[in-house]
Amino acid sequence: MHKVPSSSTLGPGGLDLTDAFFAPISDAAPPSSTTRHIKISVVGTGNVGMAIAQTILTQDLADELALLDAKADKLRGEMLDLQHAAAFLPRTKILASTDYKVTAGSDLCIVTAGARQINGESRLNLLQRNVALFRQIIPPLVEHSPDTLLLIVSNPVDVLTYVAWKLSGFPSSRVIGSGTNLDSSRFRFLIADHLDVNAQDVQAYIVGEHGDSSVALWSSISVGGVPILSFLEKNAIAYEKETLENIHKAVVDCAYEVISLKGYTSWAIGYSAANLARSLLRDQRRIHPVSVLAKGLHGIDGEDVFLSLPALLGRGGVLGVTNVHLTEEETERLKESARTIMEVQNQLGL
Amino acid sequence: MHKVPSSSTLGPGGLDLTDAFFAPISDAAPPSSTTRHIKISVVGTGNVGMAIAQTILTQDLADELALLDAKADKLRGEMLDLQHAAAFLPRTKILASTDYKVTAGSDLCIVTAGARQINGESRLNLLQRNVALFRQIIPPLVEHSPDTLLLIVSNPVDVLTYVAWKLSGFPSSRVIGSGTNLDSSRFRFLIADHLDVNAQDVQAYIVGEHGDSSVALWSSISVGGVPILSFLEKNAIAYEKETLENIHKAVVDCAYEVISLKGYTSWAIGYSAANLARSLLRDQRRIHPVSVLAKGLHGIDGEDVFLSLPALLGRGGVLGVTNVHLTEEETERLKESARTIMEVQNQLGL
Amino acid sequence: MHKVPSSSTLGPGGLDLTDAFFAPISDAAPPSSTTRHIKISVVGTGNVGMAIAQTILTQDLADELALLDAKADKLRGEMLDLQHAAAFLPRTKILASTDYKVTAGSDLCIVTAGARQINGESRLNLLQRNVALFRQIIPPLVEHSPDTLLLIVSNPVDVLTYVAWKLSGFPSSRVIGSGTNLDSSRFRFLIADHLDVNAQDVQAYIVGEHGDSSVALWSSISVGGVPILSFLEKNAIAYEKETLENIHKAVVDCAYEVISLKGYTSWAIGYSAANLARSLLRDQRRIHPVSVLAKGLHGIDGEDVFLSLPALLGRGGVLGVTNVHLTEEETERLKESARTIMEVQNQLGL
Amino acid sequence: MHKVPSSSTLGPGGLDLTDAFFAPISDAAPPSSTTRHIKISVVGTGNVGMAIAQTILTQDLADELALLDAKADKLRGEMLDLQHAAAFLPRTKILASTDYKVTAGSDLCIVTAGARQINGESRLNLLQRNVALFRQIIPPLVEHSPDTLLLIVSNPVDVLTYVAWKLSGFPSSRVIGSGTNLDSSRFRFLIADHLDVNAQDVQAYIVGEHGDSSVALWSSISVGGVPILSFLEKNAIAYEKETLENIHKAVVDCAYEVISLKGYTSWAIGYSAANLARSLLRDQRRIHPVSVLAKGLHGIDGEDVFLSLPALLGRGGVLGVTNVHLTEEETERLKESARTIMEVQNQLGL
Repeated sequence: MHKVPSSSTLGPGGLDLTDAFFAPISDAAPPSSTTRHIKISVVGTGNVGMAIAQTILTQDLADELALLDAKADKLRGEMLDLQHAAAFLPRTKILASTDYKVTAGSDLCIVTAGARQINGESRLNLLQRNVALFRQIIPPLVEHSPDTLLLIVSNPVDVLTYVAWKLSGFPSSRVIGSGTNLDSSRFRFLIADHLDVNAQDVQAYIVGEHGDSSVALWSSISVGGVPILSFLEKNAIAYEKETLENIHKAVVDCAYEVISLKGYTSWAIGYSAANLARSLLRDQRRIHPVSVLAKGLHGIDGEDVFLSLPALLGRGGVLGVTNVHLTEEETERLKESARTIMEVQNQLGL
Repeated sequence: MHKVPSSSTLGPGGLDLTDAFFAPISDAAPPSSTTRHIKISVVGTGNVGMAIAQTILTQDLADELALLDAKADKLRGEMLDLQHAAAFLPRTKILASTDYKVTAGSDLCIVTAGARQINGESRLNLLQRNVALFRQIIPPLVEHSPDTLLLIVSNPVDVLTYVAWKLSGFPSSRVIGSGTNLDSSRFRFLIADHLDVNAQDVQAYIVGEHGDSSVALWSSISVGGVPILSFLEKNAIAYEKETLENIHKAVVDCAYEVISLKGYTSWAIGYSAANLARSLLRDQRRIHPVSVLAKGLHGIDGEDVFLSLPALLGRGGVLGVTNVHLTEEETERLKESARTIMEVQNQLGL
Repeated sequence: MHKVPSSSTLGPGGLDLTDAFFAPISDAAPPSSTTRHIKISVVGTGNVGMAIAQTILTQDLADELALLDAKADKLRGEMLDLQHAAAFLPRTKILASTDYKVTAGSDLCIVTAGARQINGESRLNLLQRNVALFRQIIPPLVEHSPDTLLLIVSNPVDVLTYVAWKLSGFPSSRVIGSGTNLDSSRFRFLIADHLDVNAQDVQAYIVGEHGDSSVALWSSISVGGVPILSFLEKNAIAYEKETLENIHKAVVDCAYEVISLKGYTSWAIGYSAANLARSLLRDQRRIHPVSVLAKGLHGIDGEDVFLSLPALLGRGGVLGVTNVHLTEEETERLKESARTIMEVQNQLGL
Repeated sequence: MHKVPSSSTLGPGGLDLTDAFFAPISDAAPPSSTTRHIKISVVGTGNVGMAIAQTILTQDLADELALLDAKADKLRGEMLDLQHAAAFLPRTKILASTDYKVTAGSDLCIVTAGARQINGESRLNLLQRNVALFRQIIPPLVEHSPDTLLLIVSNPVDVLTYVAWKLSGFPSSRVIGSGTNLDSSRFRFLIADHLDVNAQDVQAYIVGEHGDSSVALWSSISVGGVPILSFLEKNAIAYEKETLENIHKAVVDCAYEVISLKGYTSWAIGYSAANLARSLLRDQRRIHPVSVLAKGLHGIDGEDVFLSLPALLGRGGVLGVTNVHLTEEETERLKESARTIMEVQNQLGL
């Protein structure tokens, strides 16, 4: 483990104060090797992984935070940069290593690592490289933290959540993909900004595949308790289906727009993952649109496919899925997404 | 268990929605009976117990909060009053019962229950009634939560922390008295208010017995890194020992003053206990002046006596005691307190 | 003003440290008499007022908190009890006085004071005594804080919010009654507890008169984006109107139940008022069911009557009222409430 | 101004809901153009500026956050990335523009912009380019926010804080450099990590010039109220001056180490600036080592030089400087730093 400062930093004959500074009390319990505290590990310390780690730290969601990456220098730099803020924050023990031992005993492991597309590479080839990467990541995570929850953020998130589930051998309730949790926040922001209200008073979900084929659940949108669609009807406000589709399209385009402008997305996905970490570890029983095993729901039969649906999250992971009403068209689009994902999965040979 | 609303409230044939509302996912883990979350129990729901419970709730320190008291009506009223705020707070499961089963699996049990002095009753008699009360409280707490930390707030706190330690059979590191943590905050407030600075920039400790014989550690006071005593000397500011004693006296009188004005103290002790709960359960490794087993420290030999000393607190309870420097006079006063407490303890026949 | 410790507490020749401890920097701005910070005043320091004050303090909603009451001793005791927690909280300047000068420059004044019913007293007589009390409270508040928002918590809240509005001469957007904000939280808790979900995922409003004649808006209830009524219909779950009424009745009975059990309500109303204070002062633009001037809305014509409706709250106070759809029956009940309130108001001679 | 979505995003004939959705109440105050809320502007959206902005957002320190940068694309990308998290955070209005109008009415402006060193460029030349940059930044900031506080983060921070002061025409109490606030946190972290205690229980200051010539105030270090130096002496623990110097050297090297490992520093300076923003805007009266006008203090005479000293910060900016005791050697080093900075400043021709 790399901790700073090592006593060597302080020089030979350095101040070995700890023993002198604190006296033990008599009849104390022996120091426990299995302290019961909240530990989160983040695998991958790129822009996304670090935005997640830093938000978790600021929101004081963990007592111990472990970072893991293959790039030792970058990793240590990020660890030190977080540690240096110690005087400004509640205490969180921050560790970092290229060795999976650092993640031992995690309550939640968040995976952000992923291969980058090479020029001209096919999507399938990229995915296969990501599957290979997950073969290196998931088994040692599971070995060192057999009781952990797994939160997958790497893209394509739905397929990779399935991959993580298969590789982990975990029950499906303990493997969650960040899915459309962020898309839904963008949806809520766009509506809230339009009405100039707080986004937390807007109920609106995007479900299905994370990405271009996601499905906006128009009938579930309400603002301050007012269902939008029936509001429009009752007030005889004309709107065209095209208009609603434009709003959904704006959500889908959001990610592309940010990437084209700043090169990547980071802050919003960081807040999204921290938001999920809170609901999971603090047993909040909140409903989030996240990627879960959808087999048997909404007519998706027989196939092991992960898709985002409004799920109830708590300390045990996925506790259930809301029986949200979908129109026939929405159901059809969901099933089509499921078929597309299955075709890809079938080529992976897992 | 009393939960509101029971299905009976909603009437026979009421809305049995839960099963219809949420669908299970396939391959989910079976619901766990031993969820790993943070649980705090508060024993005694008088003014002090409720100020503690409410502050813990507002500061979101627990995932589950259990209240226990002998008065069933008052208990249920307090539980409902807290539960009704659900829409304004992060989710905390709030339970209440007259049965100790409600405390099962606690990470921290906070004991505020205590007998009240009857007119003309001797202090010893009162104490013996409190010991009898603790014989009813501590064993069932320990039975239902064998791994819990115990935080004793009931007065006289030092003796009753010793009593709780003996009755629990716990290692001393897991039994803590709130001690002079609040006295020290009052000390820091008085100094901070005088200088018009933030009390969090004032380092100042009151140690020893909680109450009239407490000891102010003048040499340890610093404000923004400036040690006050040497500052006064270096700047040739004359002060009389009497002046310092007056400040300490003001601290000791604080509690009496509040009681004479509003009838009891509640808010400040509520914040103090929540402050300790945070350091303990979130493994903060912060230093607090709390009542710990002082045998073998500062010349207190041979006797099992609890007194407040600056202790390092974390998930394991008391991790050590600061080797703070005491003057000879301070040491003498500490030892005298120890002797007085021992004399009382010897009469208890534990 | 009463601040502790006065220098006299520290004795003649006490430590006059402030000037010695801090050096001024050169070219500094002169100390401003009109610092721009957040100030909240709470009028009335009974159980409700103190639960509000303490929650505001814990949630760090104000930079300065002023308490005002006619009972000087109780008032000073409560102030000291809050001040003594200084070391455990971010700094808030806490003041208390029986003189309205202490409230000068408030951003928000919360009025909790109210006369208690004398045995055998008529409701009208009680109300007239409360109006007399408000004649003593509102004008000096307004005089010392001409730009303040007014939040009325005293009961009967709807009539007294009207009274405060008339006495203040303020635009109606700056006078708000806590109304059914708490009733709605209780409603959301009952539904959330039934489904075992987080109450923050339940959208549900109680509107109208605070009390027995309040109106539950069934059509606006949704949980995690699922509208409950249409969910029941689509899933062919039978329910009787009576069942829904029982839930509403449980909400109405909540307050009476708590009062019968513990003697008064405090915590939940404290959280409710702090929740409103946050939306107002931090410009959150959130939607709350609070008592606002309802003239011209939902067929309430011609009469100056305050009733709870879902209102958008921000730094300017009430920014608008949601055009929530009411059924004919709901509208009729709302109008009836308005008429009843008007009849009472007409007898007040304001 | 760039706000997303513009109505055009939602298409012609889009949902113009706001007017339909909310009804005005009668007798409301006209919408104010000068709402009194907390506004922070961040100038420069590089790694440092964005870490500051994101931390301010997460910690909910502002009601309005304005970003300004010369690179319009990057700027808009960062704004969108923050806005998309709306559903996960309390509401903060987030604006961004290349036009200084966006900063109008700020309570605090944080300047992180700075020129980068060109290969082979002299330090003086680089500084002159930064002065030229500040000539473009400071006057329009001051014009649009005449009452703002200025927090300078750009390096070399001491000289540039002086430059900002001169260009602003502000009293010195309203111009602050982030100075050694971060160095001191690193110092506290190193000591805390060594003793395995919470860094918030370590009092330790680095003062003077931010950078290699900074001065560690050994005599002011205390841990949990125990002054370290006298503790070592009293316990006869031998230590060499060299050992202490090594710890200080480790602090100085920290920044270089992080830069060599990850290419830049960001998180820790983000937390440091947010920490200062909180003390300033929430009137916390906390003591921070920050860069202030040091003329007349510690023997620095006659010259207008900014250096870090432990300063009391509140809503008015710098309220005073702690009369911390310096040894003769420390004073000499401070004065030498002052002379070096003056020499540089004299070459700037301001």
